[in-house]
Amino acid sequence: MTQAQLAERRNSVTQAVAEIREFLGERISTAQAVRDQHGDDVTWHKGVPPDAVAFAENTDECVKIVKICDKYGVPVIPFGTGTSLEGHFTAVHGGISVDMQAMNAILEVNPEDLDCRVQAGVTRKQLNEHLRDTGLFFPIDPGADASLGGMAATRASGTNAVRYGTMRENVLALTAIMANGEVVRTSRRAKKSSAGYDLTRLLVGSEGTLGLITEITLNLQGIPESIVSGVCPFPDIESACNVAIQTIQTGIPIARIELLDEIQIMAGNNYSQLGLEEKPHLFVEFHGTEAGTAEQVELFGEITQEWGGGEFQWAVKTEDRNKLWQARHDAFWASCDLRPGEKSFSTDVCVPISRLAECVMETKKDLDDSGLYGPIVGHVGDGNFHVLVFADPTDPVQLKTSYGFLDRLVLRALSMEGTCTGEHGVGVGKMKFLEAEHGTGVNVMRQIKKALDPKNIMNPGKIFTI
Amino acid sequence: MTQAQLAERRNSVTQAVAEIREFLGERISTAQAVRDQHGDDVTWHKGVPPDAVAFAENTDECVKIVKICDKYGVPVIPFGTGTSLEGHFTAVHGGISVDMQAMNAILEVNPEDLDCRVQAGVTRKQLNEHLRDTGLFFPIDPGADASLGGMAATRASGTNAVRYGTMRENVLALTAIMANGEVVRTSRRAKKSSAGYDLTRLLVGSEGTLGLITEITLNLQGIPESIVSGVCPFPDIESACNVAIQTIQTGIPIARIELLDEIQIMAGNNYSQLGLEEKPHLFVEFHGTEAGTAEQVELFGEITQEWGGGEFQWAVKTEDRNKLWQARHDAFWASCDLRPGEKSFSTDVCVPISRLAECVMETKKDLDDSGLYGPIVGHVGDGNFHVLVFADPTDPVQLKTSYGFLDRLVLRALSMEGTCTGEHGVGVGKMKFLEAEHGTGVNVMRQIKKALDPKNIMNPGKIFTI
Repeated sequence: MTQAQLAERRNSVTQAVAEIREFLGERISTAQAVRDQHGDDVTWHKGVPPDAVAFAENTDECVKIVKICDKYGVPVIPFGTGTSLEGHFTAVHGGISVDMQAMNAILEVNPEDLDCRVQAGVTRKQLNEHLRDTGLFFPIDPGADASLGGMAATRASGTNAVRYGTMRENVLALTAIMANGEVVRTSRRAKKSSAGYDLTRLLVGSEGTLGLITEITLNLQGIPESIVSGVCPFPDIESACNVAIQTIQTGIPIARIELLDEIQIMAGNNYSQLGLEEKPHLFVEFHGTEAGTAEQVELFGEITQEWGGGEFQWAVKTEDRNKLWQARHDAFWASCDLRPGEKSFSTDVCVPISRLAECVMETKKDLDDSGLYGPIVGHVGDGNFHVLVFADPTDPVQLKTSYGFLDRLVLRALSMEGTCTGEHGVGVGKMKFLEAEHGTGVNVMRQIKKALDPKNIMNPGKIFTI
Repeated sequence: MTQAQLAERRNSVTQAVAEIREFLGERISTAQAVRDQHGDDVTWHKGVPPDAVAFAENTDECVKIVKICDKYGVPVIPFGTGTSLEGHFTAVHGGISVDMQAMNAILEVNPEDLDCRVQAGVTRKQLNEHLRDTGLFFPIDPGADASLGGMAATRASGTNAVRYGTMRENVLALTAIMANGEVVRTSRRAKKSSAGYDLTRLLVGSEGTLGLITEITLNLQGIPESIVSGVCPFPDIESACNVAIQTIQTGIPIARIELLDEIQIMAGNNYSQLGLEEKPHLFVEFHGTEAGTAEQVELFGEITQEWGGGEFQWAVKTEDRNKLWQARHDAFWASCDLRPGEKSFSTDVCVPISRLAECVMETKKDLDDSGLYGPIVGHVGDGNFHVLVFADPTDPVQLKTSYGFLDRLVLRALSMEGTCTGEHGVGVGKMKFLEAEHGTGVNVMRQIKKALDPKNIMNPGKIFTI
């Protein structure tokens, strides 16, 4: 950028902020600490702070903000809970971060239709807390207590996706503000429709680059009569993977099947007092009727025995079950706790289930060969797993080794007909792999982006280059 | 169109046909009978024949056809089995119909990943026949033995959608030719991904207006250990609807729950020798383990008793089950058989499950008040139902009455937060309702269409006006 362009950009931002301040008052901030907090995440991605942070409270305010940003050509960057793992909210081209955390109203719950409508800032735990007395729950559970807007924007999933699907399957409709300020409601509440293009699914996973999501209508599930959770150790990670593969191929409707390798178990023993043998484990859960879960447990038990699985520890009481899954969700923090002074890079890939064991084993070998510390945890029923790579961010050799490993991990998944990210999204972190994964499809994505956001103001610099 | 424009258009078509003939030879036809057969469907929609019909055999040939049509600005209209119910393949702006029926190769079956890849002309029955010895099946079953390309393009569903989802959930990836001739493969084979825009879901339901679908990767299901089918009569249609509502709300994982009203039962008794009492019936099916289906049957039985359901007739043997579901799929022909000389208009709407009984009852009353013959059948577990309206197409009064009824039916569904079509698609038949259903969303659809198909050659004149 030339000096003149920089000055013009600063001027545009100043004018946009001034106009937004007219109706938000003190709810727009340019304080450095606030800006920093809205540009940086927990990963290695170098965060760029936005020029200002607007704390919106409803769709109307968001419309005004987008219209002003459109007028001045200033980027609009949605911010939920700040728990993104691929640099989704870093302000690479500056602009206004729209903080949705105050948009936390649960607008309607329709138990008779098993759906609800929430503002984008409602978090998954807040929603489930609210649903507590309805007999319903919302199953999608990324590790963080993320906002549902952010989860829709990144097409998030979690431990229950193997049974209940991801945000792709569980968002029924969205309200989004397009780049021109037009408010779009993507769908009615009917469970299915053949009426026109699937704008819901287009916006789910678009990472704020096509529209600012302000409300979400979600499918809910009935809390099953019987829930059975347990953990089981395996002699090696390959056996654990093969149990996951066979479970899926057999058609057992397992609700959760999570792999934690021996390093992660050690971390969990320290952080969450799991008290487990330092071996690879599967954390599993079965949902159904009393008879149904008993039957699933029996079938699953037969598979684990075939692969040398050890004794199950069952979590019968609700509090034991909660403790178990909290420990699973805390995997990231448990690992961080073991490596003070280092930064982590939590990455994820996803492959067809038949390639899971092979992909995990090759990855494990690559970690060993590279001398990297990297626990593996995974939603293995989906063929999806994470590696938490740790390195000292001030050591260029460690960083280079880590980045080399990450590149090979993605290329390995792609070579197995998999994807560069199963649930974290592209953000800035996976941009370089998108052409390798989608080829000419990226041209189509660009054409859509240019048509819907001709000034490139909606979270620019993410997913792909224009 | 002026005479000069018409002459120019004819000239473009002639040149395009000549160039296509260079590589298709006799597989492109301009014979009137062939053209008529590719322009007209079984409904009231007035079909316009295409200028020529190209019988393609693979993706490469389709690419050449699209590139030539792009060069001359000639419309490309995909044709599967010709069983569309909303005029999807009528050539309203002329052009080349691309008949996909010879593209009927099953390219790969991956039993270990529960997926397969097929050419677009493969029909659902052909696929299931092919899968017979694998222990797998493909559940989506519209009434007709439609092509999987057409089913993807119209986001079709059928009787199993209540359990297994629609084409939206069951298409894993697509190969499509975009308007510029570029071949796009929308996704890898991993079961989930957060990598970029969901082009798969954008093309599913786009009715040929964004790209020509040539190959489809589909999710498959394991054939359940136990399948239990049955029929049950009800004193009135409202009770039958309430059973469907309560079944869904209770969370019984029912595989099929189909409503046939007393008129449809009478038609089915004549056409398929059902031998059932002339009362509204539910046709149901349960999938699971032996114990699981027994449990579902028991729970469902309790609900039917609450609503005055009569004795169940169970179809235990495979052939009895097949006969039952064939009769359900033949509902359309059974009704036609009762009304010789008349034409039918099979329409569908879909509402949130809580509004189902109300919507069906009001529709039934409207039929009575209008003096129309219109059996109602429905995938009621989805809140989706069909009315087959019959009228003498030469009688303007009957036609006017019928169209008035159809308009009211759609507006009723929309007023209940439903959709103008649950599974038939928009085509030309439902275009006028799209703005009422989607509002500003139609602007977004238009922007996407214009960006991806600037010359408007991909099945023009469908879904919305440009």
